[in-house]
Amino acid sequence: MREKALDYPEPSRTIFESQMDVRPDDIDMFQHVHASKYQDYVLAARFDQMKRCYGISMEAFMEKGLGWFVRDFSIEYKRSLGLGDRFKVKTWIQDFFRTGVCVHFEIIRKTTDKLCCKGKSHYTMVSLATQRPEPIPEWVLEKYRI
Amino acid sequence: MREKALDYPEPSRTIFESQMDVRPDDIDMFQHVHASKYQDYVLAARFDQMKRCYGISMEAFMEKGLGWFVRDFSIEYKRSLGLGDRFKVKTWIQDFFRTGVCVHFEIIRKTTDKLCCKGKSHYTMVSLATQRPEPIPEWVLEKYRI
Amino acid sequence: MREKALDYPEPSRTIFESQMDVRPDDIDMFQHVHASKYQDYVLAARFDQMKRCYGISMEAFMEKGLGWFVRDFSIEYKRSLGLGDRFKVKTWIQDFFRTGVCVHFEIIRKTTDKLCCKGKSHYTMVSLATQRPEPIPEWVLEKYRI
Amino acid sequence: MREKALDYPEPSRTIFESQMDVRPDDIDMFQHVHASKYQDYVLAARFDQMKRCYGISMEAFMEKGLGWFVRDFSIEYKRSLGLGDRFKVKTWIQDFFRTGVCVHFEIIRKTTDKLCCKGKSHYTMVSLATQRPEPIPEWVLEKYRI
Repeated sequence: MREKALDYPEPSRTIFESQMDVRPDDIDMFQHVHASKYQDYVLAARFDQMKRCYGISMEAFMEKGLGWFVRDFSIEYKRSLGLGDRFKVKTWIQDFFRTGVCVHFEIIRKTTDKLCCKGKSHYTMVSLATQRPEPIPEWVLEKYRI
Repeated sequence: MREKALDYPEPSRTIFESQMDVRPDDIDMFQHVHASKYQDYVLAARFDQMKRCYGISMEAFMEKGLGWFVRDFSIEYKRSLGLGDRFKVKTWIQDFFRTGVCVHFEIIRKTTDKLCCKGKSHYTMVSLATQRPEPIPEWVLEKYRI
Repeated sequence: MREKALDYPEPSRTIFESQMDVRPDDIDMFQHVHASKYQDYVLAARFDQMKRCYGISMEAFMEKGLGWFVRDFSIEYKRSLGLGDRFKVKTWIQDFFRTGVCVHFEIIRKTTDKLCCKGKSHYTMVSLATQRPEPIPEWVLEKYRI
Repeated sequence: MREKALDYPEPSRTIFESQMDVRPDDIDMFQHVHASKYQDYVLAARFDQMKRCYGISMEAFMEKGLGWFVRDFSIEYKRSLGLGDRFKVKTWIQDFFRTGVCVHFEIIRKTTDKLCCKGKSHYTMVSLATQRPEPIPEWVLEKYRI
């Protein structure tokens, strides 16, 4: 982790929230949501929130020749989700960098309002043509600085 | 397919419907929902409808020492679902057998109301203790014959 | 299923075989390989065999502007695969059509040599540019008729 | 991350290696292995190495009423894996704790011998009966201290 450490969980930006349901195919041999699926939940929440909350869908980025690559991801597991659980995924931009953002997340079970896991991920803005990092354009920063 | 052929798509039982959203991790290298994910969508719809529409959740079956094993599954693809699509999964019991049911399904894109795929699956009632087929108990038939 | 019925399992073409291992993330809440994963195993076997046995990898098709779309898929489950199982996937072209092939498959557990499931899938040759069916070119038929 | 920081990547224990192939269903809309699949690859490598290298399979732990829960996981992505890639997953125990181990990993593309990603995960030993942390038994430590 090369990014400057920030006082977790004090968010610097608006916290957005997406609601989802555990799918039966997410459950693993230990009868809980499989560990790697939480990263997919965070991805789904980001796609939802990019479109609904920041006003730039992933498709809109791609039309401009831009994409977000995952540079790193880390997660701490607190409580499992299981079959039939409804949950919310909160994410927010904790910090901005010249070519990326550090997004923090929390996944919370709906019925108990208990934290199931939390973590963060660094996304790098890339040009899809060159597949190289790009400075985040001003028009993106404007929408993301909420 | 050993079950008696039935005039498709004339359903013999109530058609139930579940709504879901495509998750980004469902999309494959061809930019569409990956072929095998539709089976997971049908499973998710059945779990939802067992609980919400028939009044016997999978967990309730398991507590009684019963489970449903998939004996066969077939699907015809008509149109792809893609990123950001919302869809509905309709399922109904087309036919009853002594130890199983034949469930038909249709997956329909929400915005266009167009059929994306359809198919059927035979589920066998099993005793979880013996892992062998079991006649469907009367208390199940009562709830399922709607 | 609109294709002409064929006497199963008499193959009309060479049977090819790929070996794979169950991954822990393939296991579901019932401690067996999740039902939809078998379709992924068949796909992996076809990709392997297209390249290794027929001499035209999926990438090679794509470079020529061609792709294979799944038109339908059906599977009969006989015995489950479980954690740590090694298995082989046999596939062969059962029948040719002007714009597609009907591929049959069998999945067999390695240690017991027992059939776990079998089925078939119809693949349609498409132009990636138009996304419409294409007659299978002669250079493909030559390599596929083994 | 509450564990004592260690000088990465100096391993304190034997490094083990598993070889695997990317499956077509691992590829996502960006034509690369989907970000969360690398965690599944690490899991598959650990299951393989527990059995083959340490001499205690996951099934053997479960028969003794023991399991390993993932407490945290972090990963840094360097280069993507893609369709048809063969890779190796190296893992080693970096540090022992009373009720857990910190495992480090590296995923390396076979053809180029280049590092694709690296990271670490803390696994907690639990009693399956109580679902609570357990001190790692001496018979496990003996096998794990290689």
